Amino acid sequence: MTSVKHTTIKKISDSGIESKSDLLAIEEPLEIRVGFGSVSERQQRNLSVTMRTPGHDFELAVGFLFTEGIVQNFDQIESVKYCEDGGKQEQKENIVRVELKPDVKIDFEKLQRHFYTTSGCGVCGKTSIDAVKVNCSTYFDSFRIASTTVHSLPETLRKAQQVFEYTGGLHAAALFDDVGNLILLREDVGRHNALDKIVGVMLFKKEIPLSNYLLLVSGRASFELVQKAAVAGIPVLSAVGAPSSLAVQLAQDAGITLLGFVRDQRFNIYAGEERILNT
Amino acid sequence: MTSVKHTTIKKISDSGIESKSDLLAIEEPLEIRVGFGSVSERQQRNLSVTMRTPGHDFELAVGFLFTEGIVQNFDQIESVKYCEDGGKQEQKENIVRVELKPDVKIDFEKLQRHFYTTSGCGVCGKTSIDAVKVNCSTYFDSFRIASTTVHSLPETLRKAQQVFEYTGGLHAAALFDDVGNLILLREDVGRHNALDKIVGVMLFKKEIPLSNYLLLVSGRASFELVQKAAVAGIPVLSAVGAPSSLAVQLAQDAGITLLGFVRDQRFNIYAGEERILNT
Repeated sequence: MTSVKHTTIKKISDSGIESKSDLLAIEEPLEIRVGFGSVSERQQRNLSVTMRTPGHDFELAVGFLFTEGIVQNFDQIESVKYCEDGGKQEQKENIVRVELKPDVKIDFEKLQRHFYTTSGCGVCGKTSIDAVKVNCSTYFDSFRIASTTVHSLPETLRKAQQVFEYTGGLHAAALFDDVGNLILLREDVGRHNALDKIVGVMLFKKEIPLSNYLLLVSGRASFELVQKAAVAGIPVLSAVGAPSSLAVQLAQDAGITLLGFVRDQRFNIYAGEERILNT
Repeated sequence: MTSVKHTTIKKISDSGIESKSDLLAIEEPLEIRVGFGSVSERQQRNLSVTMRTPGHDFELAVGFLFTEGIVQNFDQIESVKYCEDGGKQEQKENIVRVELKPDVKIDFEKLQRHFYTTSGCGVCGKTSIDAVKVNCSTYFDSFRIASTTVHSLPETLRKAQQVFEYTGGLHAAALFDDVGNLILLREDVGRHNALDKIVGVMLFKKEIPLSNYLLLVSGRASFELVQKAAVAGIPVLSAVGAPSSLAVQLAQDAGITLLGFVRDQRFNIYAGEERILNT
């Protein structure tokens, strides 16, 4: 599997019209299925279809299960594989099946994405924030990072993002340690997928919660990204772009540090300033 | 309802640390419900929860129903209103209920988002593309636009995007006519929502299909945006950012013109070059 595809385009500019070859970020659907239940009464359920860039699909599937609150640790997972029943090869690689151990109970309430829906007529940020806060009740850390280190992160990310350089079409998520070393980088057409891939890798390595790391994302900070970061125990979420209102509210309520517009030797602190050391 | 919210941030830069007030793009969940069935056996179903920027919620709900293939025209809609049963005011404004006329049949197969899932083990772009192509079988138009006009669009959009100027946090979708006049602009934290709001407005005005317009989006062009544009009959989709592989494939197959990197007096043509006149 590869994350880019060649194509031929026409480029229109002041210097005229030019036919040239170009690279596209690959976008394909991935269906995530989960197998669960006792050995005698095994069941399967389709959890999600997400548009993703192929590569690291197992990490994406496992990371998704974790950040959506369906599994709590790696020991609950029996196996992860591509779907084997029928279909062409290209289709098989667009379906991942995660087998849970027989004793794992799934809370299907949580399969309602983001926990928004309540039983009554209530959909509001407060409800989801409360749900996330419960999920992150053990959220304590001693992570601190210097502002000068934060300034250095976008350039480190840019250098590492080779695919992004070529296509301009991929979002990135990257883990850094407290002195600015890049630990892990994942890219995807979907920004939540890039984050789920990171979490999946660390789940395979049994290094969750990610309380010793800062996460930098290449785009904007949405509620969804803060929520996933919170579930993974990431103390500092920083974005090259702007955060939304609900992203800020959740970060403040959950005790996460949220940085926005991290670029050009500056950034804004929206929540959790105590983790940023101004050396 | 408003689309921005005030907050206080700390701004860290070379000139030091500064406390200042800032604006955030508002992100709140919107639940879309649909009422359907005969007068005697009325039913309700929750269709979607999307994170959106409040404002133009009715247009968003109706546009979503249309671009997801659930309704085919405005005459199928009886009424659109905020949910009235219980809950606080802020919650009510996060739930929209669309009543369909009693004789409207809903194809619940299509409620599988994006029509990806097939009955077997098949999830692939080809399947969804075929589904969209069927939806757009009457897709013919005589729309043409000059490349010099395309060059002018980003600046027109930028000037109109006042909210974007302040928060940097909103995606935009804008309709232009063939001489570059801005017809309609909508903004949202979700780029698909901005597009659905546009389609919803035009559905209320009974101006669907949008065969006389170009759509410009502020971000990247995903499969989802091309799909929604196709269902709405938009002949030219142009993006300030990059398109994905599946976006290009769908545009080519559906006969849509797809432009990417529309900025700085240049752009790339990925599909449908016959609609671009190089004057």
